[in-house]
Amino acid sequence: MKTMEWKDNKLILIDQTKLPDEVTFFTCNSYKDVIIAIKTMVVRGAPAIGVAAAFGMVLAHLKDENLEIVAEEIKSSRPTAINLFWAVDRVLTSNDPVQEALTMYKEDIETNLAIGRHGSEIINDGDTILTHCNAGALACVDYGTALGVVRSAFHQGKDINVICDETRPLGQGARLSVWEMQEENIPVKLIPDVASGYLMQQGKIDKVIIGADRVASDGIANKIGSLLVALAAKRFQIPFYVAAPLSTFDFDISIYDAEIEERGSEEVTHYGGTRICPKGTEVINPAFDIVPKDLITGIITEKGIINPEEFQSFFQQLKSQ
Amino acid sequence: MKTMEWKDNKLILIDQTKLPDEVTFFTCNSYKDVIIAIKTMVVRGAPAIGVAAAFGMVLAHLKDENLEIVAEEIKSSRPTAINLFWAVDRVLTSNDPVQEALTMYKEDIETNLAIGRHGSEIINDGDTILTHCNAGALACVDYGTALGVVRSAFHQGKDINVICDETRPLGQGARLSVWEMQEENIPVKLIPDVASGYLMQQGKIDKVIIGADRVASDGIANKIGSLLVALAAKRFQIPFYVAAPLSTFDFDISIYDAEIEERGSEEVTHYGGTRICPKGTEVINPAFDIVPKDLITGIITEKGIINPEEFQSFFQQLKSQ
Repeated sequence: MKTMEWKDNKLILIDQTKLPDEVTFFTCNSYKDVIIAIKTMVVRGAPAIGVAAAFGMVLAHLKDENLEIVAEEIKSSRPTAINLFWAVDRVLTSNDPVQEALTMYKEDIETNLAIGRHGSEIINDGDTILTHCNAGALACVDYGTALGVVRSAFHQGKDINVICDETRPLGQGARLSVWEMQEENIPVKLIPDVASGYLMQQGKIDKVIIGADRVASDGIANKIGSLLVALAAKRFQIPFYVAAPLSTFDFDISIYDAEIEERGSEEVTHYGGTRICPKGTEVINPAFDIVPKDLITGIITEKGIINPEEFQSFFQQLKSQ
Repeated sequence: MKTMEWKDNKLILIDQTKLPDEVTFFTCNSYKDVIIAIKTMVVRGAPAIGVAAAFGMVLAHLKDENLEIVAEEIKSSRPTAINLFWAVDRVLTSNDPVQEALTMYKEDIETNLAIGRHGSEIINDGDTILTHCNAGALACVDYGTALGVVRSAFHQGKDINVICDETRPLGQGARLSVWEMQEENIPVKLIPDVASGYLMQQGKIDKVIIGADRVASDGIANKIGSLLVALAAKRFQIPFYVAAPLSTFDFDISIYDAEIEERGSEEVTHYGGTRICPKGTEVINPAFDIVPKDLITGIITEKGIINPEEFQSFFQQLKSQ
């Protein structure tokens, strides 16, 4: 099963809030259901959010709703991942919404396979790769961006080890990335988010690969904690790669102008149903942070790997297309 | 109530594993009880471990046990905090173990008050101070090192805000530091460990103050995650202070030669009894990391604040005393 399927005019999503213990499904009969799924992180990860949002538009189209209004509503469900905007606009301007969404679904898989192919070139036999959050199959329709690179290298027969940051507060690394790796028998270990710097200091990490929710010419936005990992990688001269499809690219803004979503405090004050701090504790819970360009070794896209020096020209070239 | 009390020839400890929800006590009738308390983190924090270990020696002395053997056993309970070694040796070479431990108990409070006095000089009115783990009253006999500085500044009438890192896996920031601040009505907010870099990038942190389990001439060892905080502070030019008594100083080794304790995997795989990752997940769980000297703005001791440039001469001067 892929992360999502379009069947009998319904969007069926794996409910990622229940993983890894239960593989259950969340069926979207309307675009409102899709918005709920995105907001509650039943579906998450920039590429997956994009394709789910496209099908949300399709559901609205099938019920003859006003797509302009629906588009605005879906876009406001999560502000940071640009794929959401890109996907909604693509369906909105299409003559055949159903076909457009199905094309995007297929493209997402092909894009990830291409990212995996390009990215696997930077992986050496024996590498230990650190990843943060989940930029895996579950963050996409299938295969994954950062974990797509890992999968590709593994299936080429390279001997690799993966280390997953837990990724508090919602534990996407612990729950989703560890699970994906275990399902494919790729050697994997879990660490608390606090431990990545120490492992790099000890020479135990060879490469870092993460995903991105938005890529701009001066940096990227990705899951909160990515910045700390990037700073440690820079300090200990460990290559730090971002794997992201071009649909994640934003040509119009500085990454510092991207809206950073702030999420509810219960995500932080509770863990696995247990309160982890005194009652009434106040919380700050930003969902993303910003990794400046100078901390990034390269961005792995479906068109190849872009180095930071090439960012400006690459962006200009793409924008003019 | 202080973190520990010596009463009727027993050591009574606040059970820190039960905080903040329950204030319960763990009574040590023998040095073996003290070892259990240290290993299970009923008592934790370098200064508190030191004084508890001293009373462990006293308990063995009162039962006429072989103190040389007991000393080795207590020292092996946790390897990274040097106060443990310092305290045990101090009682071992004393003519009056009971009096020596009681002196150390009193000294610890005086030392922290002095650290607070010196440290408060670097705190400005309006500062937001980030701390990691718990270097508070609970990590000492009373008052605290890093949080002692915060307390001192607050009681001088300075308008300050405190931000506590959660400090996975055991949540000393969320459970203990937040609680200590709330108990004194010092404004406090909790963040997940992943968020400190972002807040610094946004200009929302004015100073970082943490404790230390060991201080050497080339850096410090402290709770895992301290290194990531230090790297972010360096990047965003935020003063990064370590508050630690001279009993934490190790004049003999490079900090890179300090043994870093690796703790059990269940601390990472479970929270509040709930598993947070797939069954059978392998884990790496180092308890401490190393912050190199160049990332430290100053070390706040009971004798004043030492700048990194002065480290060598300060260490030589102390060693020769």
